[in-house]
Amino acid sequence: MTEAIIKNRVIGVDISLDATSYAIVDVRGNIIARDGFSTRDYPNVSEYVSVLSERVVMLAEQNGGYEGIRSMGISAPSANILTGCIENPPNLEWKGVVPIAAMLRDRLGIAVALGNDAHLAGLGEHVFGCAHGMKNFILVTLGHGIGSFIYSNDESHVGADGFAGEIGHTCVEFGGRVCGCGKKGCLEAYCGAAGIVKTAQELMAASDKPSLMRTVSKLTPKAIAECCDKGDEMAIEVFDRTGRILGLAMAGYASVIDPEAIIFAGGVSKAGHWYLGPAYEEFEKHVFCHLRGHVKFLCSALDDHERDVLGASALAWGIKEYSLFK
Amino acid sequence: MTEAIIKNRVIGVDISLDATSYAIVDVRGNIIARDGFSTRDYPNVSEYVSVLSERVVMLAEQNGGYEGIRSMGISAPSANILTGCIENPPNLEWKGVVPIAAMLRDRLGIAVALGNDAHLAGLGEHVFGCAHGMKNFILVTLGHGIGSFIYSNDESHVGADGFAGEIGHTCVEFGGRVCGCGKKGCLEAYCGAAGIVKTAQELMAASDKPSLMRTVSKLTPKAIAECCDKGDEMAIEVFDRTGRILGLAMAGYASVIDPEAIIFAGGVSKAGHWYLGPAYEEFEKHVFCHLRGHVKFLCSALDDHERDVLGASALAWGIKEYSLFK
Repeated sequence: MTEAIIKNRVIGVDISLDATSYAIVDVRGNIIARDGFSTRDYPNVSEYVSVLSERVVMLAEQNGGYEGIRSMGISAPSANILTGCIENPPNLEWKGVVPIAAMLRDRLGIAVALGNDAHLAGLGEHVFGCAHGMKNFILVTLGHGIGSFIYSNDESHVGADGFAGEIGHTCVEFGGRVCGCGKKGCLEAYCGAAGIVKTAQELMAASDKPSLMRTVSKLTPKAIAECCDKGDEMAIEVFDRTGRILGLAMAGYASVIDPEAIIFAGGVSKAGHWYLGPAYEEFEKHVFCHLRGHVKFLCSALDDHERDVLGASALAWGIKEYSLFK
Repeated sequence: MTEAIIKNRVIGVDISLDATSYAIVDVRGNIIARDGFSTRDYPNVSEYVSVLSERVVMLAEQNGGYEGIRSMGISAPSANILTGCIENPPNLEWKGVVPIAAMLRDRLGIAVALGNDAHLAGLGEHVFGCAHGMKNFILVTLGHGIGSFIYSNDESHVGADGFAGEIGHTCVEFGGRVCGCGKKGCLEAYCGAAGIVKTAQELMAASDKPSLMRTVSKLTPKAIAECCDKGDEMAIEVFDRTGRILGLAMAGYASVIDPEAIIFAGGVSKAGHWYLGPAYEEFEKHVFCHLRGHVKFLCSALDDHERDVLGASALAWGIKEYSLFK
């Protein structure tokens, strides 16, 4: 008599420009095993898919067997949840439209679902983090880029084309700074990592005041936050300005969405204690009057390295999202 | 043997500052009969509820009998769909929180549901108008105020507190014009009826150029549009500026929502041919790159007088919305 195979694990994969992380995750979000490799080593996507497939099967075989794997979820930039494709990614070496979910499904013989990084960070936060139980929230990822995710009526809001949540490229200053996307005045040009550094450079250039930032060899949001921690006024001003622009943008966003909370995640959000105060102050000034005092500002409860694979595994488990992939 | 009563009609009610309209509507959106009275005549809400109840029953008795009425839907400003209350309406004479759905339910003995005017205009457009079949769209009402409605994943997005869609009071110009809500730079202060008139006044004050607008006894968006129709350059400039601000705001809105279409309704939208062109031009410049060419700008397919009662009747029929009121 053969034993019934219980498929009680999924694979969560997080693809970024530098690294690919993958993990075996159970239904409670416990990471059973994880590994990774350099994404840049495989500019050819077919080769990448072969390597990822082999490594995933190997990790599964070493940890309870591949036959116990139910499905795979993938988090990637420029990923379209509606098509399962990575579409013209500016932040990956692959070009054009890459049907990565279908390619992996063919190799692995299991269901594979794909979502963009902000979307799956939000889903991870909902299933395993501080948005647990919320029916309406926004998650904003602050890093090199700024992305976001809308959870509405207890469902992911992905939009008509799968591109909902692109708050980073909404205009916060008409005719303002040129953004990486080619437009002017985008939120990302002020509150993304490069934008914050640019604000610091502008402040340093505009006066002769002393600042610890002038002694830093490579300015990054982290380095600027460290100057803040030492009481540097100009560095504090950098995050104050960043926070006020972020807060104004969030006020407009919340006024149309009416969320329970806005949750901040991503590398830059670690300096949250320096800019979320001014951000919330500006938010309360500008949000629709009936929402004042109603919208919580929260920082992600999940470890940055874990959020994306957990989000991808939540997608794989099909929690809330399953109907999209039936 | 008694005949089974078929409840095949609903009542749709539209409450505004000046007028209350009510109609008996069948499931296809045919208005069987309609009537109305002045809202202002009843500053006491209990009296208003008595009069509305009596008149609704009378209209039903004259048109097939009250026993054929299934339910009632109400469209009102400042209405909260989650509570069934009109909450602190700045545009009605009643003050505080008015539990109007419960009051009418007690009087009439039928289910009564309440939604805000922009929400129900959107629902009406979805059930009976040009958004029919769309799963993701935004409806924007342009009139004295600017409201909006988000339809997401084939459901109404009402938000955590029932206040989603408040695009009129999002900031389009930091530190700009003072809005009726007390904040500065709101979209409504530029693209609402009073905002458009203000732009006309500013343009007239800023130069000595001749303009037909200078001869108009009472400037309104309609009067300005009539000057445009006669080829008046300054009037055309008024709507060009209005359109560009509207288009920029819609670009940000669409970038986070990713709708199939933005549908414009309300009094000011009648001058659409003068400002939707510039609005769409600005929209395409500023919307997230992947959405360029993907979002349609449409004008409401429904008659202004009918949209709100039809939206209210759609709510009453429980199409899509029924689960909220079970």
